Amino acid sequence: MTELPQEAVLEAEVRRRLRPDRFAHVQGVVATADALARRWGVDVRRARIAAWLHDVAKDEPPETLLKRAREFDIVFDEITAREPALWHSVIGAEIARREFGIRDKEVLAAIRYHTTGRPGMSGLEQIVFLADLIEPGRRFDGVEELRRQSREDLTEAVLAAFNGVICHVIRQGGLLHPDAVAARNDILLRRS
Amino acid sequence: MTELPQEAVLEAEVRRRLRPDRFAHVQGVVATADALARRWGVDVRRARIAAWLHDVAKDEPPETLLKRAREFDIVFDEITAREPALWHSVIGAEIARREFGIRDKEVLAAIRYHTTGRPGMSGLEQIVFLADLIEPGRRFDGVEELRRQSREDLTEAVLAAFNGVICHVIRQGGLLHPDAVAARNDILLRRS
Repeated sequence: MTELPQEAVLEAEVRRRLRPDRFAHVQGVVATADALARRWGVDVRRARIAAWLHDVAKDEPPETLLKRAREFDIVFDEITAREPALWHSVIGAEIARREFGIRDKEVLAAIRYHTTGRPGMSGLEQIVFLADLIEPGRRFDGVEELRRQSREDLTEAVLAAFNGVICHVIRQGGLLHPDAVAARNDILLRRS
Repeated sequence: MTELPQEAVLEAEVRRRLRPDRFAHVQGVVATADALARRWGVDVRRARIAAWLHDVAKDEPPETLLKRAREFDIVFDEITAREPALWHSVIGAEIARREFGIRDKEVLAAIRYHTTGRPGMSGLEQIVFLADLIEPGRRFDGVEELRRQSREDLTEAVLAAFNGVICHVIRQGGLLHPDAVAARNDILLRRS
């Protein structure tokens, strides 16, 4: 593993960049990712760093995110381009690399794919994806069941989370990112 | 439009290949596709021919469908390969071409994509896709609403149908074919 930043420095800088309610959510994700990493034998420090940074770009207005994308030479795929809610993950991973000096590819991937997921997610990616949905501040039908599943079978919990997220996006009339669907199919294909 | 077969010949041959309950479903799809084609200014004869043939391979056992796939040099994509419920559409289009002499590419596409859909569906493809779901023999929550929408706005009805189908597949724990998700995204992207 390449060098990771001090957590106290990270926490202060993340706090500076986020609204208080968002920062509270991030604290919840860090605590949940920590617990899941311990439970599932994933590197706890990496899980915490990825959790601290997963929403680092989320409170930037859309026009700033687009400006950063141009600056970073990022070209969004067609669905991401039309779904501003997906921008912060892509930009956030690049901010983690450029501004926080993160070189660990697994940590960067956990930030990059925390909203959509992707096929072949690592344990670290699964943990950040799931922690984002089940941290103590989250309230939605089925969240308790998801918390229970996350302690019993990580991959089954991730599958259940994708099922919920995909149907939620459909009910909202949003675009479905193909990575999310491919991530769910991938879990089904691997277990059968 | 290239030459299409006589409907009476087609009907007799389709009846011969299907179980009675399936044949009754196909008759419903033909009647519904006919009505939708009239309503939406789509060629009625093509809609009826595609409807007659859409399930022509559906009562073949999986091993026969696999044998036909090899014979026809069809290689299924990864998701189709794992989802036997998708095989009959691909094989059915090829049977329509080889054994029923259909050369009309739009009719063949309407058969080929009647289960998953795809981005950029023609009116004919939309009508066969929808008629398959709302023909008079179908019973499920929301079917009446879908029938109503299909008379008012064809594309919105197709979107609502995809929403229902995708969440149904998720509840059943099935694989989601990327074409279905891309078809739904495509409708949202075109209307916005």
